[in-house]
Amino acid sequence: MFLLQVPPSPLIGFTSPHASEERESEAKYLEALDKADFPAWLKRLSAKPHHLGSDYGLRNAEFMRSLFASWGYDAQIERFQVLFPEPRERLLTMGRFKARLTEPRLKEDSTSRASGGLPPYNAYSCDGDVTAPIVYVNYGMPEDYDKLDRLGISVKGKIVLTRYGGGWRGLKPKLAGEHGAIGCLIYSDPRDDGYYQGDVYPLGAYRNQNGVQRGSVADMPIYPGDPLTPGIGATPDAKRLELKDVATITKIPCLPISYADARPLLQNLRGPVAPDGWRGALPLTYHIGPSVEDAHLELRFNWNRVEARDVVAKMPGSERPDEWVIRGNHHDAWVMGAQDPLSGAVTVLEQAKATADLAKTGWRPKRTLVFCLWDGEEPGLIGSTEWVETHEKELNDKAVAYVNSDTNGRGYLGMEGSYELQPLINGVARDVKDPEKGISVFDRARDRQLAGAAPSARPAIRAKQDIKIGALGSGSDYSPFIEHDGISALDLGFGGEDGGGIYHSTYDSFDWYSRFGDPGWNYELALSQVAGLATLRLADADVVPYRFAPLASEIGGYVKELVKLTDQMRADTEENNKTIDSGEFAAALDPRLTETPPVKKDMPPFLGFSPLQNAAAKLQTSCDAYDRAHPVDAPGSAELDRALIGATRAMLGAGLPKRPWYRHEIYAPGLYTGYGAKTLPGVREAIEGRDWKLAGDRIVILAATLDKLSEAVDRAAALK
Amino acid sequence: MFLLQVPPSPLIGFTSPHASEERESEAKYLEALDKADFPAWLKRLSAKPHHLGSDYGLRNAEFMRSLFASWGYDAQIERFQVLFPEPRERLLTMGRFKARLTEPRLKEDSTSRASGGLPPYNAYSCDGDVTAPIVYVNYGMPEDYDKLDRLGISVKGKIVLTRYGGGWRGLKPKLAGEHGAIGCLIYSDPRDDGYYQGDVYPLGAYRNQNGVQRGSVADMPIYPGDPLTPGIGATPDAKRLELKDVATITKIPCLPISYADARPLLQNLRGPVAPDGWRGALPLTYHIGPSVEDAHLELRFNWNRVEARDVVAKMPGSERPDEWVIRGNHHDAWVMGAQDPLSGAVTVLEQAKATADLAKTGWRPKRTLVFCLWDGEEPGLIGSTEWVETHEKELNDKAVAYVNSDTNGRGYLGMEGSYELQPLINGVARDVKDPEKGISVFDRARDRQLAGAAPSARPAIRAKQDIKIGALGSGSDYSPFIEHDGISALDLGFGGEDGGGIYHSTYDSFDWYSRFGDPGWNYELALSQVAGLATLRLADADVVPYRFAPLASEIGGYVKELVKLTDQMRADTEENNKTIDSGEFAAALDPRLTETPPVKKDMPPFLGFSPLQNAAAKLQTSCDAYDRAHPVDAPGSAELDRALIGATRAMLGAGLPKRPWYRHEIYAPGLYTGYGAKTLPGVREAIEGRDWKLAGDRIVILAATLDKLSEAVDRAAALK
Repeated sequence: MFLLQVPPSPLIGFTSPHASEERESEAKYLEALDKADFPAWLKRLSAKPHHLGSDYGLRNAEFMRSLFASWGYDAQIERFQVLFPEPRERLLTMGRFKARLTEPRLKEDSTSRASGGLPPYNAYSCDGDVTAPIVYVNYGMPEDYDKLDRLGISVKGKIVLTRYGGGWRGLKPKLAGEHGAIGCLIYSDPRDDGYYQGDVYPLGAYRNQNGVQRGSVADMPIYPGDPLTPGIGATPDAKRLELKDVATITKIPCLPISYADARPLLQNLRGPVAPDGWRGALPLTYHIGPSVEDAHLELRFNWNRVEARDVVAKMPGSERPDEWVIRGNHHDAWVMGAQDPLSGAVTVLEQAKATADLAKTGWRPKRTLVFCLWDGEEPGLIGSTEWVETHEKELNDKAVAYVNSDTNGRGYLGMEGSYELQPLINGVARDVKDPEKGISVFDRARDRQLAGAAPSARPAIRAKQDIKIGALGSGSDYSPFIEHDGISALDLGFGGEDGGGIYHSTYDSFDWYSRFGDPGWNYELALSQVAGLATLRLADADVVPYRFAPLASEIGGYVKELVKLTDQMRADTEENNKTIDSGEFAAALDPRLTETPPVKKDMPPFLGFSPLQNAAAKLQTSCDAYDRAHPVDAPGSAELDRALIGATRAMLGAGLPKRPWYRHEIYAPGLYTGYGAKTLPGVREAIEGRDWKLAGDRIVILAATLDKLSEAVDRAAALK
Repeated sequence: MFLLQVPPSPLIGFTSPHASEERESEAKYLEALDKADFPAWLKRLSAKPHHLGSDYGLRNAEFMRSLFASWGYDAQIERFQVLFPEPRERLLTMGRFKARLTEPRLKEDSTSRASGGLPPYNAYSCDGDVTAPIVYVNYGMPEDYDKLDRLGISVKGKIVLTRYGGGWRGLKPKLAGEHGAIGCLIYSDPRDDGYYQGDVYPLGAYRNQNGVQRGSVADMPIYPGDPLTPGIGATPDAKRLELKDVATITKIPCLPISYADARPLLQNLRGPVAPDGWRGALPLTYHIGPSVEDAHLELRFNWNRVEARDVVAKMPGSERPDEWVIRGNHHDAWVMGAQDPLSGAVTVLEQAKATADLAKTGWRPKRTLVFCLWDGEEPGLIGSTEWVETHEKELNDKAVAYVNSDTNGRGYLGMEGSYELQPLINGVARDVKDPEKGISVFDRARDRQLAGAAPSARPAIRAKQDIKIGALGSGSDYSPFIEHDGISALDLGFGGEDGGGIYHSTYDSFDWYSRFGDPGWNYELALSQVAGLATLRLADADVVPYRFAPLASEIGGYVKELVKLTDQMRADTEENNKTIDSGEFAAALDPRLTETPPVKKDMPPFLGFSPLQNAAAKLQTSCDAYDRAHPVDAPGSAELDRALIGATRAMLGAGLPKRPWYRHEIYAPGLYTGYGAKTLPGVREAIEGRDWKLAGDRIVILAATLDKLSEAVDRAAALK
């Protein structure tokens, strides 16, 4: 039995009598969870390679569908036909050195002997056959190319060698290509992902010298999902792009390699010693290059269409069946995927099973529950995106919230999501116990923040009622829900005490996970508890449990940030230009090195922020008014729910510049950060890109969107 | 001919007509400097090992004395009998691994084949023969032992393995011994000093895997110089301590090793993975230990007395012969010492030669010039300390300033010193051109500060008339002058564009220096110019060129720092104790690791800072008054000079707690930092050590010293 140590906090959206009923249902749900399922399912699902389109992926989907069906769900496999290139030829040589490009079997890892797995490669790299010297470009992010410019080193006509980290992998070949490189290699440096971090597998949890991070390099900040069908479902009869017209496939060939394979390449580099922040943990002096010898990189892919199989299981709502609460995690892996994605996927299964057990006691969800296990997340959030695009109209009408998870492990609860759900998820976190420490997972996460903060910063953390959740960028299946469709979303998972370096490698296996991921399966249980309670509360509440004040407060903060950012850019530009003009930068440089001073930049104008500032102020007023008019224990109505759902959709606009698939005006993955969220992305990226005209235009657009949101919240506030 | 680009700044301490004469003399001095001397002398002096007590050290001293004599100086070799242990036995094994403990010959380095050099060792390590497991303690500084405590790892009965860096090497065996270790190994990690920094010697300038940093581990923050004769000159008849009573010899045996020798030891460690900041650049996972196997360390030394030979050359002053301006650099090396110390030593020779050439034109210094080349700096500032102690009375009466240098190389001018000399040395820096950039070395140093500063910090740097010089701690021969005798001092040298990793190794050779230290000998010339002009201005000025406002301003700043430090400690202690009491620290910890929460600390009381604050305010008033009463071009007098010299001595007190040899109340090397300066050390170290009673007592003592200084400055101000 699950024990609460403190009097339970009020349940948001429940009248007092309904809150008591909900607590009773939740107790039954928690009671029904069974830790023994996790190793059994995880072992079964990770027994063979199960990437998108694979035989075992289909068998896994069928297995999960049958589980759902056996528990009484209406469970289907929904299929899409999607582009998924698999490697036909991979070759990397330099002089007599030939890269290994494979991950050897380990006697300590039983599934590393399995066949049929995808070898290390980057999906949606173009085909290519290039021969050129190598230049090392650190993480291959925009600031790294700025530094190369200052050092007078061009990547034009070269193959760049970049290390994983610093930003989303797909940006590396994109930026390399934009700077004139003809090929891109990405390796895992042991500084970031290897022996520097801890003992390597199989002795310890960390990446060994032969481990390689596979991964998609499709330009997902433009659009995710099937590259051939942007914006629409990849159904058999969908209108498809021709391969040559696909914007998200790389322009230059790109291959991931191990640090054992990278080492001889790095040793071949000459030219300047790499700046301090560029150096990794291999036992050599990191130079930028170019290399003495040419490297030869050859990549060929089968550009086939394969079948993506999403498992979708529904339990209809008893009172408001046309409102959906969706809970999902992907099921496809790069190879065995015990951690990624199965550690999260099995918590969805367990949640569904316990929810079905709860239903056997007579309980029914007020709203419809939809459990989803997505295919093709790894190549590009394909299963979720195609499903969202296919059912866009229905989701727009019905979706209350999407609760996502992905990998999970020992440690602290991580919470990202839509800020209207911040109070809800904090309440859940207060009600779930950390399995190894006995305090709530809320306290544990907050205490970790406290312990890591400067003493002077701690009182402010203690003073806040809730832990501030993170903003959603991209990197998992919540992306199409919130960013394309405006659906409130959460992304949940434990971690931070698991460590590891098997991400997207063959060694992400049951053997690894049961030793290092969550030995004891305690945090698998904890995630089933957290996501389960969040889902149940979303499904059962008398009124959709959004609270708008935190959202308005976040948005108000972002607006202040943008004003400050522009002021700071203006001050820095002025001062830097002055330091350039005076010759002071030039004077400080070593005349025997190639480094040159920075170049002058245009002065940022004063932007007309006032419409945005006024809109943000109005939004705060509207949101505060809603929260006052509708206390957390007020009764609800279907009409109010409709108004609330409508309010979240009010944050959608006509699409972001250069990437109209992304319609959310408040959150998007950064065009040049990838995973990381950019808040108020239209305006922020225009400012960061010094496109002042565009920034001015986007301020007006964003202000109108915020006004639309205020009006929607006002409408909800006026309802009973 | 040396060209000034801008109208010369006023010469501090010179009346206008005398300033013109001085400019003419300086032009002749600069003209007489001859770059060709540097390689010739440096090659000759570095041809064989010339450590303290060595045959070649004597031959070098005789060669330099004869040079001075040939230029017309009254030149002597002054001899002391000092304790200097040389190794008889060095053994380090672990299982079948036997450490190499030698630096192999390199065909690219001609003197690496020389015999008679000291092998790698730490001077003033005690004898010892110990066998125990190894524990890795990072830099072996106080905060590292705090971390070990929190991790529950004891070094008691263990041999610690520590890396160079983070603080003075002598603190490593001291702290290890205080924590119960029975042996200490110090290695150069390639992260700090090796391939991580750049290509290794002989390909590049950096430390190769066999290079070892020798060095003294005598407890010099207690007292430097001959360990047998603290506070008195080590003359033949001096009263000496018995060896067993010497406090500055280590309590546990200590040996420096290369990273090639350290690697098998590190690989043998188990226990927790070392915290992020503890990890180096060897290709392994850094663990803390203990090691699986025991290490065996055996060290035996010949505890002999040897002869230290200081070369001292004088040119009597024409008007005020009883005022001395002293210019020095050491001449002893650990092995060949091309960079350390000869790159600095030859600039002293060149300066003396050009000064003698100037004297041939009829010029004579107003004050007496004393050129010194010290022996035994490496083992413990021995030559300079014994000379200062021997001539203490005379120096107290006569010394106007001591101008030190040590190693020198390509790059930016580094200036440390007494703040009453800050305007003087800034003026000199404005008058010397950077040989590779054509602007003044002042501009170059300031532009480097600007280029490295945040844009918002640059206006403040530009607004300051002078570059703020650094405070003197320890690490070279200025220490006894300022810290024991209160003599104003400067320490000068170029660097920052030379790089390198041959410090205290066999490979600090002519071959290395001419390739990497100062190829072209331009910065050797520049240091001869800077130190030469500083010395000439100190010698020729109508009035000793101190300006007191910068000193008072610095001291006022230190007092504010101490108040802030105590307030911060109080706030942090309160908050940390609260976070401990609440269990929040404990809650954040991983239950499967050994780490424990920090322990509570006593609350710092409010200290009675007011006497110190009042004294600092009064000092500022007095110093401003002196500078107003004596403009930079006012005439002087011998009486005023005496008052000014007396003012600098007013900063001496009865000695610091636990180390009465250090008498300066404003500057000392830190008891637990070693090289780094501690300002207002009596009070500051009491606060840092949380000895509140002592802090209160030292505030009163320091306030009285500042009052004494104010009165001395007032007396000078009243004179004409």
